[in-house]
Amino acid sequence: MAVKLSWVESANDPQTDFPLGNLPFGVFRRSDGLARLGVAIGDQILDLQATVASGLLAQTDVEISRCCETDSLNALMALGREAVSKLRTHLMDLLSDRGARARVEPALAPQAGAEMLLPAQIGDYTDFYASVYHATNVGRLFRPDNPLLPNYKHVPIGYHGRASSIVVSGADIRRPCGQTKPADAEVPSFGPTRSLDYELEVGFFVGKGNARGEAIPIAEAESHIFGLCLLNDWSARDIQAWEYQPLGPFLAKNFATTISPWVVTMDALEPFRVPAFARAEGDPEPLPYLTATEDRARGGIDLKVEAWLRTARMRAENAPPVKLSQGNLRDLYWTLAQMLTHHASNGCNLQSGDLLASGTVSGATRDSLGCLLEITRRGAEPLQLANGETRKFLEDGDEVILRGYCQREGHPRIGFGECRGIVLPAHPC
Amino acid sequence: MAVKLSWVESANDPQTDFPLGNLPFGVFRRSDGLARLGVAIGDQILDLQATVASGLLAQTDVEISRCCETDSLNALMALGREAVSKLRTHLMDLLSDRGARARVEPALAPQAGAEMLLPAQIGDYTDFYASVYHATNVGRLFRPDNPLLPNYKHVPIGYHGRASSIVVSGADIRRPCGQTKPADAEVPSFGPTRSLDYELEVGFFVGKGNARGEAIPIAEAESHIFGLCLLNDWSARDIQAWEYQPLGPFLAKNFATTISPWVVTMDALEPFRVPAFARAEGDPEPLPYLTATEDRARGGIDLKVEAWLRTARMRAENAPPVKLSQGNLRDLYWTLAQMLTHHASNGCNLQSGDLLASGTVSGATRDSLGCLLEITRRGAEPLQLANGETRKFLEDGDEVILRGYCQREGHPRIGFGECRGIVLPAHPC
Repeated sequence: MAVKLSWVESANDPQTDFPLGNLPFGVFRRSDGLARLGVAIGDQILDLQATVASGLLAQTDVEISRCCETDSLNALMALGREAVSKLRTHLMDLLSDRGARARVEPALAPQAGAEMLLPAQIGDYTDFYASVYHATNVGRLFRPDNPLLPNYKHVPIGYHGRASSIVVSGADIRRPCGQTKPADAEVPSFGPTRSLDYELEVGFFVGKGNARGEAIPIAEAESHIFGLCLLNDWSARDIQAWEYQPLGPFLAKNFATTISPWVVTMDALEPFRVPAFARAEGDPEPLPYLTATEDRARGGIDLKVEAWLRTARMRAENAPPVKLSQGNLRDLYWTLAQMLTHHASNGCNLQSGDLLASGTVSGATRDSLGCLLEITRRGAEPLQLANGETRKFLEDGDEVILRGYCQREGHPRIGFGECRGIVLPAHPC
Repeated sequence: MAVKLSWVESANDPQTDFPLGNLPFGVFRRSDGLARLGVAIGDQILDLQATVASGLLAQTDVEISRCCETDSLNALMALGREAVSKLRTHLMDLLSDRGARARVEPALAPQAGAEMLLPAQIGDYTDFYASVYHATNVGRLFRPDNPLLPNYKHVPIGYHGRASSIVVSGADIRRPCGQTKPADAEVPSFGPTRSLDYELEVGFFVGKGNARGEAIPIAEAESHIFGLCLLNDWSARDIQAWEYQPLGPFLAKNFATTISPWVVTMDALEPFRVPAFARAEGDPEPLPYLTATEDRARGGIDLKVEAWLRTARMRAENAPPVKLSQGNLRDLYWTLAQMLTHHASNGCNLQSGDLLASGTVSGATRDSLGCLLEITRRGAEPLQLANGETRKFLEDGDEVILRGYCQREGHPRIGFGECRGIVLPAHPC
């Protein structure tokens, strides 16, 4: 298959995250200080407001154009999958048609000079727990006798996270204070967490929502997903261990969640769809409301995700980050469609711009564990870095960088960009 | 002390929830269809937009007037406690000064003809678990060997709830479907909940927020609380029992939460402040970040709360609702200030309009249990209603009505109005 090229030269670089076949959506600020929608192409951003202003979207319907002039993706998300596909196809034409170049080029802005913002106003944020490897590994550490609870293979387990503290890649992360009680302590104490961790996750945004009281059938679930991003669910393991029973994680997680700024559409991921996770022999079949032939056949996404670490020392020595792990979204026990359908199965109303996340993406192997809790077995086996440093958990000045991409013979690489954050020392507490 | 009277006659009725000393804030819609802010006075609403338009708030500063012209309380909440006190005092003057009557009266609208809306755009919703009686009773049912977990008396336990499904009093509640697995079943099944319950709670709105990464000292916590409302945390107990481990309640709760429309300010509750819950001998002292002399001395609120039930048959027979229980907010183990300070202690940013809730308000006695789970001991001891009906949990057509009020010799009664909802049959699932 011949790969269609763009007249934006950087988009044809085989190493770019943002070829013509990707066109992820985001929100950015130009030097005028105003937030506007954009689409990443190579090392540039196509400014959608400028595109509309130049009359380049005249063929697209009025509703779509209007959404391109807002300052968040929510309105576009609400239009639904078909409208977004139509817009994306139109943008692809503009960015590949050399005849359009002169008219489109003024609407480009270099990514290097743009400030990326949160792509949407996130009403509610829900984090799932869809990696059976992660659930088992973590379960073993917190409950050695009882690692995987009996509901896990029946229920896509999830919980509500905090929307207000979701930040975009690049925002600093202040080490949180909290109550902890080591096993050997009589009483708890309050202070900076000693077990700050990242979690390598993938987020997905709700496109069209559902009304309160109405479910979303599994066969329709994907039409309610706008697209995906990378997500770091920063976690304080010592706070978590002491607070999480019986109502789940709270302050251990809600101080910050970082997402990558570009939302990769389901359309862009189309060539990388794979069968849903193969359940082990003896595993229960999902209940009918979570079962669809189509979802079983191609509910998975072959999306590689990686976590990298750059310590303060590495920065000072101008050394590159080191890779901590690599996983794949296809290893999730539950599909995105199953998570979304489960979420709405009780009539819970999902709204455009709501963010759902996969939970830590861990795989079966030692090099595919998506957080330090698993990698260092709760600090028992510290990580040896090549420069001589060691880590049980994150230290002040550490930068965590998440990356993600789809790659397959005959298709341009579809990348997610980066999701970064540096840990700042705790305030006195 | 002589009680100041209003020229709005209905506000001087000793039985009204809304005397001059209350003046709770809300959002309502008049016949023109537009949402606007209002303050309840007797059986009337003072339309704040109309009040501003008539120049009656000219003495108040411009910022406050501007907030009164929006369609949600968020902006006013963000101004902080002092600004709201100033506005409320000014409104109190207008509504008591007979000389102002002719100018103010055109801004009144009867409550009977108004549609009440959600008072704020709720960014995040957090539910606590602050009644030690409730936590112990529920713990005993779910974990007979281990009712009250070791963290309870140290940590104000809470979890994130769903903001999108918070509805205002009067909205119908669709019985949710979900996965359940009775103890004697081999595998779970999907269907309408058989254990629909209410939870009698009190909600409180965040006024001024805090920046991400910054805590809120306990001594300042109350200045971040705008006011209180009643809250019904509808719960499906069978779904909850199967899903809640290890990440807490999710679909068992997030299908709907009902709140009363009027937000009673902390100023209005001033005369009803009482010492914080007296900890039993041997109970640990709260950690220093949760301790303040002032909070200990008057962190409690003597607020009576009641749950009432009106079944479909009672409605058909024109019979009044029956009271299920009555509790008191002063019986909470943790104060509102402690919950708020704990929430922000890790730097989690609370935003104006965020809603926090107490958790089920249960007391020590049999008649003060705030949900059917406790009252019927998970259905084991069905409730006998006077008309011959029985209830283990809620049935279709049941209406739950929450009420709340402060009452004390020499002070007008400060009421909360009502928080109502009728259960509709499940959709086929």
